[in-house]
Amino acid sequence: MKTDCIFCKIVHGEIPCCKVFEDDDVLAFMDIGPVVKGHTLVIPKSHYDPITGTPPAVLHRLIEMVQKVAAAQYAALKADGVNVSQANGKAAGQIVPHIHFHVIPRFLADGHHWNWNAKNYDTTEEMQAFAGRIRGALQGKG
Amino acid sequence: MKTDCIFCKIVHGEIPCCKVFEDDDVLAFMDIGPVVKGHTLVIPKSHYDPITGTPPAVLHRLIEMVQKVAAAQYAALKADGVNVSQANGKAAGQIVPHIHFHVIPRFLADGHHWNWNAKNYDTTEEMQAFAGRIRGALQGKG
Repeated sequence: MKTDCIFCKIVHGEIPCCKVFEDDDVLAFMDIGPVVKGHTLVIPKSHYDPITGTPPAVLHRLIEMVQKVAAAQYAALKADGVNVSQANGKAAGQIVPHIHFHVIPRFLADGHHWNWNAKNYDTTEEMQAFAGRIRGALQGKG
Repeated sequence: MKTDCIFCKIVHGEIPCCKVFEDDDVLAFMDIGPVVKGHTLVIPKSHYDPITGTPPAVLHRLIEMVQKVAAAQYAALKADGVNVSQANGKAAGQIVPHIHFHVIPRFLADGHHWNWNAKNYDTTEEMQAFAGRIRGALQGKG
């Protein structure tokens, strides 16, 4: 437990939450500021952050739980779609630095629109250069 | 392979892509319409969609690859953060119906802002009712 972490406090019952699922390793509970009503958070009970510092075995458990919550949102809320979102760092919009997946039910008429502002590369070579840098890091050469 | 699927065509080399990683099961390549330059897609080579129809073992491989791409973006691009995003259904903004994770490098000055329009429940009881429906479905009672 990280003593100044809001989600650790929720895990340990020091701050209340509206739970939808809990086992020894993961907790799923309602986001009190839903992008769309039904918006659920999935977290590990142990403190990890960001995704690059989270053991793969924990990520496996989290993504399985995300899948189950998505299925439940389709079934119970008659959702037309589901967004899964996970932010790392303030630059990405993360507020609580304890890894969490947002599972957000979507409806054709829910009125929400992400600002999915897709841009272009100036040239194909520019895109290839970005790819080369990422590829290099993946190969341990970055 | 699903013959009318753009991502299946990319997997099979019928449509070109700018690859950053490939093995027998997963492919990572550049999104040609980046939200932020460096934006990478992670997909399974086999066709699955949506997340609720994707085998857990495939999700494990995908989230591991997402983690590696995020680490590469931090290392190679000096990203300040990373967004991970996965959409299911047109209502969620999904365009290509072949499961894919967006891995988007973020920078403090990148100028991008999600429309993270958090709302409120009208009452605590309303939130509890949503939680109850999701919890019921997770327990097979939904």
